[in-house]
Amino acid sequence: MEFTVVGAGMAGAFLALVLGRQGHTVTVYERRPDPRVSAVHTTSMNLGLSERGLKALDRLGLREEITRHVVPMRGRLVHGHDGSVRFSTYGRGGILAIQRHDLGILLIEAATRLPNVRFVFGTRCVAVDKDLPVADFVDDAGHAFTVTPDVIVGADGAFSVVRKHMQRDERADYHQEFLEWGWRELHIPAGADGRHRMADDVFHLWPRGETMMFAHPNLDGSFTCSCVLPFRGPRSFDALRTSDDVEALFRELFPDVLDLVPDVGKVFLDQPTFKLVTTRTSPWHHEGKVVLIGDACHAVYPFLAQGMNAAFEDGLELADSLAAFPDDPEAAVERFYQRRKPHTDALAEMSRQNFAELRDTVRSPAVRLEKACDVVLEKALRHRWMPLHAMITNTTMPYAEAQERARRQRRILQAVVAAAGMAMVGGLMRRLR
Amino acid sequence: MEFTVVGAGMAGAFLALVLGRQGHTVTVYERRPDPRVSAVHTTSMNLGLSERGLKALDRLGLREEITRHVVPMRGRLVHGHDGSVRFSTYGRGGILAIQRHDLGILLIEAATRLPNVRFVFGTRCVAVDKDLPVADFVDDAGHAFTVTPDVIVGADGAFSVVRKHMQRDERADYHQEFLEWGWRELHIPAGADGRHRMADDVFHLWPRGETMMFAHPNLDGSFTCSCVLPFRGPRSFDALRTSDDVEALFRELFPDVLDLVPDVGKVFLDQPTFKLVTTRTSPWHHEGKVVLIGDACHAVYPFLAQGMNAAFEDGLELADSLAAFPDDPEAAVERFYQRRKPHTDALAEMSRQNFAELRDTVRSPAVRLEKACDVVLEKALRHRWMPLHAMITNTTMPYAEAQERARRQRRILQAVVAAAGMAMVGGLMRRLR
Repeated sequence: MEFTVVGAGMAGAFLALVLGRQGHTVTVYERRPDPRVSAVHTTSMNLGLSERGLKALDRLGLREEITRHVVPMRGRLVHGHDGSVRFSTYGRGGILAIQRHDLGILLIEAATRLPNVRFVFGTRCVAVDKDLPVADFVDDAGHAFTVTPDVIVGADGAFSVVRKHMQRDERADYHQEFLEWGWRELHIPAGADGRHRMADDVFHLWPRGETMMFAHPNLDGSFTCSCVLPFRGPRSFDALRTSDDVEALFRELFPDVLDLVPDVGKVFLDQPTFKLVTTRTSPWHHEGKVVLIGDACHAVYPFLAQGMNAAFEDGLELADSLAAFPDDPEAAVERFYQRRKPHTDALAEMSRQNFAELRDTVRSPAVRLEKACDVVLEKALRHRWMPLHAMITNTTMPYAEAQERARRQRRILQAVVAAAGMAMVGGLMRRLR
Repeated sequence: MEFTVVGAGMAGAFLALVLGRQGHTVTVYERRPDPRVSAVHTTSMNLGLSERGLKALDRLGLREEITRHVVPMRGRLVHGHDGSVRFSTYGRGGILAIQRHDLGILLIEAATRLPNVRFVFGTRCVAVDKDLPVADFVDDAGHAFTVTPDVIVGADGAFSVVRKHMQRDERADYHQEFLEWGWRELHIPAGADGRHRMADDVFHLWPRGETMMFAHPNLDGSFTCSCVLPFRGPRSFDALRTSDDVEALFRELFPDVLDLVPDVGKVFLDQPTFKLVTTRTSPWHHEGKVVLIGDACHAVYPFLAQGMNAAFEDGLELADSLAAFPDDPEAAVERFYQRRKPHTDALAEMSRQNFAELRDTVRSPAVRLEKACDVVLEKALRHRWMPLHAMITNTTMPYAEAQERARRQRRILQAVVAAAGMAMVGGLMRRLR
């Protein structure tokens, strides 16, 4: 079959590779320039490749190639207000930090090695007629043209043009929410010796309640930092007008970073602020002629670092569904939707909840006790007990199953904590007698 | 101040009248033709004017004029499967049935009596620049022009063009959901004697579980019926392909209507099917330069018949807010948003819940007992106890308050029913001893 894929981001490039391997003819159109030629300005955080993503790349024989571009992170290092640090392990495989630019190029190069896959950059999709199907494009030189493949795939992100045209006049559910927080990127360069200036095998996190920062290690000795702040309020993007304001904020909240980012006040003000959006929609397809994958049908907040991993899972599931119904693309895309939708809904919910978890500094004693029990039970029960983050990161258990299992574990934990509390009160009363 | 209102539906026409009375200069642009000249094809059910809407019209001195166009409905007449009927009163003022076309003309005529209010029909809003603010229009002759008022009001319905332009590049939450049900309109003409062929002082309802029908009396002896069916499934729009299919469905579910609608099979198939959408969004305004009202910011399902009543409340609240901050439109529209948003959210939720209530035929004994207690308590406690429908229909209590009060009452009812159940079981056990 002949596929037109709109968007050469993670979702689109990966899908092109999978479909190409299956022998389909694939052309990918991307509005941005070719990342192999020009450094693309990205609107997305550094990537964390976890078990799901790695398994997917493994199936395509890319694991070895990938590992040359990653920095393994074996756990999370939480930086306290007072300069103290606290480590918690990611378990098993950990998470692999990789720069979006590197992974993008790797996928595109792997796909273009196939004779039946082609990428066209600097070309914008302007309309889709879902019933034919037909897609209209305009390239950077202003030249307009039309393509008539068998299937059009919208891999064009949270504000997908394909989705807009596919859902026109349909009874389409659509939900979009933004956080009151945004983020800016900062860069910690390598030290004079070319090496990392903080631990290079962990994910660094500075949780500060209303604000937070985190940093991923890069291969070249540098770190990519993401500062998450509210848009409005006393400590917000809105309130930071001068480089003195910025430096004062860093001195107060992130003093250990102040010296690591040269000229942080000015640099911070020059950076664009990115928004954080989550979307949920249905339908995902139209009669086997148009189908959406990745952020185009389920953009999530980045706080579980699963966006790309989920997009890769989408790609595999869509390819498997097409292979299961080779003569019936409508049945194939419906199978794809049915098998993915519950899990991407669950991922969206868990990603939202994990934001509070990440930036939270003060925890009630009950929650601390719960967390402690979670770790103890994991060690004691091994495969029969796994904290949520481990299920998301270290397994390929479908997201909704992980969510349900975490809920059951949570109920048990709460009962354990309540019992422990009652035993303590009982002990106290006996002493008082 | 100078206002441009986009949309001359219920929300826009009413607002033009209120703002005009306050001395503002108002121009209303509407893409449809002038309803005073041509019969507009509507995509909305017949209207039920309840206390909220009536109070709003009263404030504008229109109550007397309105009452010449309405048919009072004193309650709901439920038609059973077997031809039996069951009446339940709406209490106090009842609900006034009125045809959208009549009320639209009445509002437009009242507004154009003011020298500072003007309507321009057959003119479509194509773009808004929210920061100036500027609105671009194209009229039916293809002539394009631009207006630069102080404030642009989007009263252009659920798929508002003003909203789309106002929220572009903003962190705007937006939620849209369609029901799996749609509806078609049917007409029961007056009898040979020019009189109604069913009771003319009630709202007629045929609840049938997955489907339902209802009918509003018109002044001319006819009824306007709305048939609500699922889009897909055994008894659905999809399944009704021939006039025989339609007649078989009516014979099975609505036998008493079969003879009242001439040639129902053919007529039904010729009617368009309307979708049912609910939307929720924020923000509602941009810096006091652009603001949304009515369906443009909170379309609700029609099952509490409050869409128009809520749009009138919006109009009054916006006008009151502008009067409260005559020199600060930004503060005015923010006050408007703060005072309306919780209530329109509550209305959306209650309207959704009432759909199941309306079409439901089989009720558990516990629910029946609850309903019965609800009525008894209303009579016994008078002003201190009021069923939800009465609070929505017969009062101007803000929607979120009505919702909260109904929740409290529900908890009490459930406790009463549980206690009654326990007493019964106790009595039974004593007998068995």
